[in-house]
Amino acid sequence: MRNSGIRPIVLLTDFGQQDIFAGVLKGVIASISPESKVIDLTHGVLPQDLLQGSFLLAASYSYFPKGSIFCVIVDPGVGSDRKGICIETRDYFFLGPDNGVLWNAASINKIKRIIHLTNTDYFLDSISTTFHARDIFAPVAAYISKGLEDLSILGKPLKKCVEYRFPKIDRHDYSLGLTVIHMDRFGNVTLNLSEKEFEGFVKNQQFCLTINGVRIKKRYHTYSQGEKSELFLIGGSSSYMEISIKNANAAKRLSVKSRQKAVLEIIDS
Amino acid sequence: MRNSGIRPIVLLTDFGQQDIFAGVLKGVIASISPESKVIDLTHGVLPQDLLQGSFLLAASYSYFPKGSIFCVIVDPGVGSDRKGICIETRDYFFLGPDNGVLWNAASINKIKRIIHLTNTDYFLDSISTTFHARDIFAPVAAYISKGLEDLSILGKPLKKCVEYRFPKIDRHDYSLGLTVIHMDRFGNVTLNLSEKEFEGFVKNQQFCLTINGVRIKKRYHTYSQGEKSELFLIGGSSSYMEISIKNANAAKRLSVKSRQKAVLEIIDS
Amino acid sequence: MRNSGIRPIVLLTDFGQQDIFAGVLKGVIASISPESKVIDLTHGVLPQDLLQGSFLLAASYSYFPKGSIFCVIVDPGVGSDRKGICIETRDYFFLGPDNGVLWNAASINKIKRIIHLTNTDYFLDSISTTFHARDIFAPVAAYISKGLEDLSILGKPLKKCVEYRFPKIDRHDYSLGLTVIHMDRFGNVTLNLSEKEFEGFVKNQQFCLTINGVRIKKRYHTYSQGEKSELFLIGGSSSYMEISIKNANAAKRLSVKSRQKAVLEIIDS
Repeated sequence: MRNSGIRPIVLLTDFGQQDIFAGVLKGVIASISPESKVIDLTHGVLPQDLLQGSFLLAASYSYFPKGSIFCVIVDPGVGSDRKGICIETRDYFFLGPDNGVLWNAASINKIKRIIHLTNTDYFLDSISTTFHARDIFAPVAAYISKGLEDLSILGKPLKKCVEYRFPKIDRHDYSLGLTVIHMDRFGNVTLNLSEKEFEGFVKNQQFCLTINGVRIKKRYHTYSQGEKSELFLIGGSSSYMEISIKNANAAKRLSVKSRQKAVLEIIDS
Repeated sequence: MRNSGIRPIVLLTDFGQQDIFAGVLKGVIASISPESKVIDLTHGVLPQDLLQGSFLLAASYSYFPKGSIFCVIVDPGVGSDRKGICIETRDYFFLGPDNGVLWNAASINKIKRIIHLTNTDYFLDSISTTFHARDIFAPVAAYISKGLEDLSILGKPLKKCVEYRFPKIDRHDYSLGLTVIHMDRFGNVTLNLSEKEFEGFVKNQQFCLTINGVRIKKRYHTYSQGEKSELFLIGGSSSYMEISIKNANAAKRLSVKSRQKAVLEIIDS
Repeated sequence: MRNSGIRPIVLLTDFGQQDIFAGVLKGVIASISPESKVIDLTHGVLPQDLLQGSFLLAASYSYFPKGSIFCVIVDPGVGSDRKGICIETRDYFFLGPDNGVLWNAASINKIKRIIHLTNTDYFLDSISTTFHARDIFAPVAAYISKGLEDLSILGKPLKKCVEYRFPKIDRHDYSLGLTVIHMDRFGNVTLNLSEKEFEGFVKNQQFCLTINGVRIKKRYHTYSQGEKSELFLIGGSSSYMEISIKNANAAKRLSVKSRQKAVLEIIDS
């Protein structure tokens, strides 16, 4: 098999698994470009949750082959006048609604150009008002995957796209106001604080993270360092700080919700 | 890669995702036909729910490449004397139990012939009584995918198969008795009423849909037209009418169950 | 397409579907070996449940093509000093943590050699302490898939690996103490008793299985033989005995939990 010219398509959506939405995208892609490899990044983004979609994309895109086409569908505005766009970056293509969900990953990888998808020659013949992933984004992804060289044929260039930033850290001299941006299957709770920022703030001082009235004062480097049922901080695989318990579910234990607030303080030792 | 002769296999089952059933089908297929592309349409059909399986297949099959082999496993009668069949239609192959789940899609696409799968040369060597998808349907799909030209070798031709019809609309002069046939991850509630039928019945008159004691009088063309937390009707991506709320879950809000009844009336304006 | 040399990679993990973990593995694999076929066996193993992971692997591996590489991630000790290993067996490769999860399947298929994965040339450049599946096991799987001939380059040979045995049957003259080892989506409850052992013990005598205070005295060969809402035993597709109800959920009905005990007795007829 020579894959030259065939670029992989990576799907990241809020479609879930119990429905046919993701399967239908693969049918559309296979109809246009039978040899394209399609990879499910996940379909488990919470419905319409731009923060989670944006975070998961930024945390994972760099593990995919250069040339991959990310088809990202978290689209609360489908059918409205929000644009459909393709962002070409240094190494990748990001396709989806212009609502910011693509922005974090694309801007980290350096945006080269942005195209507003308007050329209906690259859409399905009939365009619904409720399922643009099927009717617009999947076919465009398939054509790019097949080796479309000049993206400008897809529509009009845009000078900029909607920017969506993670919740800001509330910075004070001895404390940081943080936000929960993700919880995974194991109950690890991801905060909007990178491991690097954590280390720069805490240095070697004693800290205390307070969330839902619970105080956490330990930081470990592996899950196995934790005592049974002890809550601790750890640098997660996304390089953001997480609250964890060894072999148990920290999110359930803390009754945490997405976007919940937490405070990290330096305390006198 | 030249795919000539290799037909894609599309899986639609009620196996769910937490188990190995779907994975094992792919192992069986890869053992017989390593080059076949296998696409998950969904494994999320509710256990043994023929109505949902039949609806999802009919709503999606046409988005797949011609020549695709649909392996559809919603099989409450596995191990009984219900037949295993392959329906060849104008553009596709539909494989599964002869309980009607294949019938809606196959008959829309025009049935060319029906084969009762009896030739054990195309099954696994050992046939269980509980998992015919693994032992019969997956291997047969793999052989067809590899390029089997004459299906008649698979078994005996049948004159007809079990027909399964969607719940009928209860038609009165000024009202229609409807049934819920699907609810998706976003909480959209699909009714057994196509958009076309809706428009033919309502024309430009004022209507009211009553379900679980709640009355719905709006119809929109995009989700974004809805007011916050307002229930409305919309033509869904399957071309059937759905009850929705913008960026919220209508099914939960209405406490709807599958097969629940609803009434659509024309009212004096 | 000539797949000569390209071995399929099969993923079995406790990652679930709502997260990006499984997707990221596929990105890593596609980056190293773009032509490798990756098959999801399941990502639905309960978090850190070695018993379930081990059972599901042993029940399914033989349905995959010879030469397949099983990448099995149920890894409560990630980041600790537990080893990462590759077991080469008669027909397959089993990759994962050395905690026993690989052992049952590998020993059934006959272990040829065990390698402790220490050669960082075959890992990602940066190794986290929390996600060895991404940083170690996926890249090693990709290199083996591409056709690595001499596994000894991956690390040091080991004389043995951690063995993990299913819960033992408590054997008495007229009764067996059994354990629940799995429950599937349909509510079938798998016991640690093979169909063969069941038949050897029960012969043609009347039996009674007691679980959670409920007594079950029927054994059928197909689900369809059951009466409506009747609990019965059946030889499941894994060749282990299961407790089932026709078209209903036995696990819910019995409020069964994993590792729950049950007693099978011969009774006077």
